[in-house]
Amino acid sequence: MEKISTYAFMAEPFQCDYGRHLFMGILCNQLLNAADYHAHERSMGMKQLNLDNKTWVLSRFSMAIDCVPQMYDKYSITTWVDSAKRYFTHRNFDVKGSDGTHYATASTVWAMIDVGTRQPENLSTYKDGYIMDCVTEDYGKGVKASRVTLGDNLVLKGEHKVVFSDLDPNGHVNSMKYIDHVFDLFEPSWYRDHRPSLLEVAFVSEGHYGDTLLFYCNEEDGAYNFSVKSRRGDEEIEDCRIRIEF
Amino acid sequence: MEKISTYAFMAEPFQCDYGRHLFMGILCNQLLNAADYHAHERSMGMKQLNLDNKTWVLSRFSMAIDCVPQMYDKYSITTWVDSAKRYFTHRNFDVKGSDGTHYATASTVWAMIDVGTRQPENLSTYKDGYIMDCVTEDYGKGVKASRVTLGDNLVLKGEHKVVFSDLDPNGHVNSMKYIDHVFDLFEPSWYRDHRPSLLEVAFVSEGHYGDTLLFYCNEEDGAYNFSVKSRRGDEEIEDCRIRIEF
Repeated sequence: MEKISTYAFMAEPFQCDYGRHLFMGILCNQLLNAADYHAHERSMGMKQLNLDNKTWVLSRFSMAIDCVPQMYDKYSITTWVDSAKRYFTHRNFDVKGSDGTHYATASTVWAMIDVGTRQPENLSTYKDGYIMDCVTEDYGKGVKASRVTLGDNLVLKGEHKVVFSDLDPNGHVNSMKYIDHVFDLFEPSWYRDHRPSLLEVAFVSEGHYGDTLLFYCNEEDGAYNFSVKSRRGDEEIEDCRIRIEF
Repeated sequence: MEKISTYAFMAEPFQCDYGRHLFMGILCNQLLNAADYHAHERSMGMKQLNLDNKTWVLSRFSMAIDCVPQMYDKYSITTWVDSAKRYFTHRNFDVKGSDGTHYATASTVWAMIDVGTRQPENLSTYKDGYIMDCVTEDYGKGVKASRVTLGDNLVLKGEHKVVFSDLDPNGHVNSMKYIDHVFDLFEPSWYRDHRPSLLEVAFVSEGHYGDTLLFYCNEEDGAYNFSVKSRRGDEEIEDCRIRIEF
């Protein structure tokens, strides 16, 4: 089997924002869907892993954005596994329009965990290290996935109580919902003359139903850094860090 | 051109809820997308109408649900225009699985309006009544779209401040976002043994950015009736009425 695969999508009208651009959360979700299709075709999709009581957990996400598909634009997501080490695997993405427009390049870092113990699985031994056969370095390195440094003077910019539609099939807050909520912290008028050029997310822990997400933010040189925390009882636990450059 | 068309979809993993069912808001959104594809192929899609300063406005939505696609299920949406009168057109839908499973039947009522004046367009004269050529009664009547009667003793069950991702390309609250938010009023545990069998929405007016949506509810015989109001300054204006039977 080829090590690289391409999946076709379209910016459906009701997936588009007021400015007729595909919502960033939808684009990111389609990257995750493409990742799962690619993994599924190689017997390591979420559904197959679940039978074995394992799942994939997204650790880092970085996307460099040239432009965003607009309403009715057809686009394709190409994805491949760039590396696999003991506890982490890197997957890259390239997003292109059917007319040749280059939309974005993205990189992700994943761990496989046991659903029961929440402990990471050793990828070099899981199913005899089968994932190593999927690795290819032929298609470039994508974007470097950073840790997202926050800077000082974080200010609470907004909050959101976790609801049913925030949860993914694993019962945690869908990784990409954090992105929806972070972009929702800006007014619609902001997007008239600001388009994201870089989006980075470093995932730390998982949000749950009943939590209130708190979005602490600092701005420096036109970049917005967020620490997203789950308020659970008296505690505040960091779920992820997000950086957006416009 | 055939008067009926069918579009293929898949319940993508990150479009599915904790119970691995396609989110109702996503399914409803795909019905709207199928409606727009069908209209677009007949020169009356949203994008084409916009060039003429017109748009479609959804007035009623009713769906009888046998079951909901689960993660990775392939399904198709068949749609046709069932009738067109002076100011309203009826469009029906049938949702089936690739394995023959019957998921749902839906009916919608639409008006065409002028974007500037917000006045309804006379469909029997717009483009020489071209829409009349698209009507077919050959495929059944779908579900009767009701007005949704509310009953007494409405109680405020929840509220939601309108955010950027709630807005559709027309700049109003996306019709189907009301459905997401209404299903979010129930706890995830509710869905362990409750599946919706009927969903009806009667749209009254349009929500805007800055509004807070108020969900007033009464329950009778296992059915939930909602009056969804936009709080705008000191006023509360009814946006829509929703009925869900489980």
